[in-house]
Amino acid sequence: MELLEGIYTRRSVRQFTGQPVEREQLLEIIKAGTWAPSGLNNQPWRFAIVQDAAVRDNLAKLTKYHFVIEGAPACIAVFVDRRVMYHDVKDHQAIGACIQNMLLAAHALGLGSVWLGEILKNAEGVRTQLGLPEHLELMAVVALGHPAAKSHPSTRKGLADVLIKEF
Amino acid sequence: MELLEGIYTRRSVRQFTGQPVEREQLLEIIKAGTWAPSGLNNQPWRFAIVQDAAVRDNLAKLTKYHFVIEGAPACIAVFVDRRVMYHDVKDHQAIGACIQNMLLAAHALGLGSVWLGEILKNAEGVRTQLGLPEHLELMAVVALGHPAAKSHPSTRKGLADVLIKEF
Repeated sequence: MELLEGIYTRRSVRQFTGQPVEREQLLEIIKAGTWAPSGLNNQPWRFAIVQDAAVRDNLAKLTKYHFVIEGAPACIAVFVDRRVMYHDVKDHQAIGACIQNMLLAAHALGLGSVWLGEILKNAEGVRTQLGLPEHLELMAVVALGHPAAKSHPSTRKGLADVLIKEF
Repeated sequence: MELLEGIYTRRSVRQFTGQPVEREQLLEIIKAGTWAPSGLNNQPWRFAIVQDAAVRDNLAKLTKYHFVIEGAPACIAVFVDRRVMYHDVKDHQAIGACIQNMLLAAHALGLGSVWLGEILKNAEGVRTQLGLPEHLELMAVVALGHPAAKSHPSTRKGLADVLIKEF
């Protein structure tokens, strides 16, 4: 898949077939995430893969979008390691860049994915559910699978609405 | 350029030839940025293009990496519109996803770019220098141009260091 085409055709996918995702693909998606840039190259991202149905169902209880996690054969929970953070805004931006790489990589591999942020209201619940230490703070859950349906169309503001000034 | 290849071969480029960047390419890079996902699809990103040498030199004075901005034929300052923000962490992540799309798009177009974050210490100075309203907060400056040299090698932690757990 061509890079710009991938950026423009990626959509959030919330419905998946029952087909599992290959572990190799999940590792490729995480690897793509790690090639994002980060301030001072501190690489603050950490990941947990969840394919086990029981663990997934417990995660699902922590978001109002439970049906997405219940129906996704794989989830990757993305954390920030507070011990290596140096600047809240820049570290959160780096995590966003990392997640964008993951979504694009999934798309390039023919998978669908969606970035779940609402679950952050239960960030501590997710962390304890997964038995992870306190220095890991949940940043998002990415749900993944083989798309079950055509993705919905999406829209963006036009350039005139976002390009404020030119010098 | 293939998408995964682009993710893995993108590097920060800090030295540029004198060749200007086509305005069409800058608009394509901004458009790619806008196709990042954002929470509630609030699209909080706003942009200012700086090619004018005098304006660029004034910007350069606001960062210790002045030589990068002085030598870059184009800069795109990325702002967040505080009026449409709804969640600091998620909005900053969305900005990071947007910037990552921009860096990847530049790479796909054969340009080099670097994400400048240190200049955030003078965010207000950049905003007033560009004559922009208070609701726009600087998130980063992306410096762009035609690469003058081979990019430096970069490294990342291995998967074993970032993949904390699998279920």
